[in-house]
Amino acid sequence: MKVNFSDGERDIRSVWFENGMVRMIDQRVLPSFTRVVDLLDHCQVADSIVNMTVRGAPSIGVAAAFGMVLAARNGEDLEEAADLLRGTRPTANDLFYAVDHMVNSIASGNDPLQTAQRYSDSIVKRCRLIGRHGAPLIQDGTRVITHCNAGALATVDIGTALAPIRTAWSQGRKMFVYVSETRPRMQGMRLTAWELMNEGIPHAIIPDGASGHFMRQGMDLVLTGADRIAPNGDFANKIGTYEKAVLAREIEIPFYVAAPVSTFDFSISTGEDIPIEHRGEEEVTVMEGTRVAPLGSTAFNPAFDVTPSRLVSGYITELGILEVGDIQRMKGETDDL
Amino acid sequence: MKVNFSDGERDIRSVWFENGMVRMIDQRVLPSFTRVVDLLDHCQVADSIVNMTVRGAPSIGVAAAFGMVLAARNGEDLEEAADLLRGTRPTANDLFYAVDHMVNSIASGNDPLQTAQRYSDSIVKRCRLIGRHGAPLIQDGTRVITHCNAGALATVDIGTALAPIRTAWSQGRKMFVYVSETRPRMQGMRLTAWELMNEGIPHAIIPDGASGHFMRQGMDLVLTGADRIAPNGDFANKIGTYEKAVLAREIEIPFYVAAPVSTFDFSISTGEDIPIEHRGEEEVTVMEGTRVAPLGSTAFNPAFDVTPSRLVSGYITELGILEVGDIQRMKGETDDL
Repeated sequence: MKVNFSDGERDIRSVWFENGMVRMIDQRVLPSFTRVVDLLDHCQVADSIVNMTVRGAPSIGVAAAFGMVLAARNGEDLEEAADLLRGTRPTANDLFYAVDHMVNSIASGNDPLQTAQRYSDSIVKRCRLIGRHGAPLIQDGTRVITHCNAGALATVDIGTALAPIRTAWSQGRKMFVYVSETRPRMQGMRLTAWELMNEGIPHAIIPDGASGHFMRQGMDLVLTGADRIAPNGDFANKIGTYEKAVLAREIEIPFYVAAPVSTFDFSISTGEDIPIEHRGEEEVTVMEGTRVAPLGSTAFNPAFDVTPSRLVSGYITELGILEVGDIQRMKGETDDL
Repeated sequence: MKVNFSDGERDIRSVWFENGMVRMIDQRVLPSFTRVVDLLDHCQVADSIVNMTVRGAPSIGVAAAFGMVLAARNGEDLEEAADLLRGTRPTANDLFYAVDHMVNSIASGNDPLQTAQRYSDSIVKRCRLIGRHGAPLIQDGTRVITHCNAGALATVDIGTALAPIRTAWSQGRKMFVYVSETRPRMQGMRLTAWELMNEGIPHAIIPDGASGHFMRQGMDLVLTGADRIAPNGDFANKIGTYEKAVLAREIEIPFYVAAPVSTFDFSISTGEDIPIEHRGEEEVTVMEGTRVAPLGSTAFNPAFDVTPSRLVSGYITELGILEVGDIQRMKGETDDL
């Protein structure tokens, strides 16, 4: 992705391996600072996932894969390292997928860095294909809304929900992107707007609660990412996604989910089987270091919600746009990563 | 309403007339500070509405009525004063209603303060009746969600949406209130949670985007206020209200609007005739004094949205719970204020 540093524009990924270190853009301090952090062992990588230096299901998966490289190089117990990384966050499927992939590949005698690098490159390749398959949904003048950040930051590069937007933009089509700010952590306002701004794509940030208002005033498309998709098409994504899906159905706007097939979890049956991470209340009650809620009031802070498949128009994957009925056939398709 | 000051608990209103001044709780600094401001002329009152020291449709109306008292006492041109006050905010009906009421009453030779005081008292009385009519909707164990602040702060005392909750609570019934935080100005988190905390009513603040998640997990009732209700039942209320109405219909949860009949605007036909105030983008992009959005990104900030009547289960007024078809018959009912 294009990033403007103080010494000029560069094309970088959100997480990568370099000079024996895992390097990543610190997503906690964007857009105020563009800071790259260097991680020296798998514990630091685990920390970076827990404290959300890196976030977004595919980026978390790649960070964990590179974390396994560090564990292997440092002579750590690989099963323990894998458990530590698996325990960092509960909802996104890519994390478990990537760690299992690394464990199996290393056990088969493959070079850890080569495996992780290939996994990372494959994510980027898949995102590029998601962009190609999804771009026709965006015509000249399309008004699209997205939630949270399913951009390059979340997926190493390109993005999932932002991939069709980037691709259509590079093909010369004009669009307008409504960026739902995504309380409480503001990944829409902080990260998606930053990516769109770097690319020069016209956009405006709106409060989450204003989505319905603007959808009703005239919108053409809802595009989100996914953290985990059940075989029946139910999917978990950032809190607030379910509301947009319900509104899209009410207002008759197509609602598409963009995700690589590694997001499908065939070990579960429906969305009810997806564990929802509940985070600390201070993410809601404290804003920019100031307590805003009354002392004595509490807050609930689920990080994700589950959207039922009946509200989904289609799943934009690297293999094309799938309908619910296509998902089961994808079961073997993730093995060639 | 019960308010805890440093020297103990007191029962006060959100806006009142005392010692020749309009006095009001400064709603901008709650819950961090409980500050009362004194206003000496109608221009200061107009400012207090513009800068949202006072907010909430009925409270704005009462503040404007008291502002007209100051204008009369200070020998100002009453038509000019009325115009200044009418121009402060565009969406709430109570503002225009209260100013017209004062102009007409003063022209008929009535004492301005007596008229304004009677208007204010009548609002409180009406809120108490709204509480009485709405309380049966809340049974032991009812889980209710409200949005923004339609409490005592918004309505001089008691509240509209909070009136049935306060009444049911005082009748000994237990309930749980989900407080939708209400970005961007956080009236839910700052004000509604503060009122509930002062009363000891169990509640939790949730991000606006989490409403659908919790409604789907199990909720019994949605209760909001209204800034203006059209004769066909469409109504304007704080941005995000429309989303909750759509979600309530999808999940089959009753959605009630609580408002005095002065909120009905018989000079318009439908919700499309209600002007929506658009406020500055910095309310969205700047949080607690810190710019959070990327430089170069813009934001849209509509203060209200319009909810169509077909999504409303009923209108809780001082005259009882109305259905859409009852509204037209209310046309003369506001004349006895």
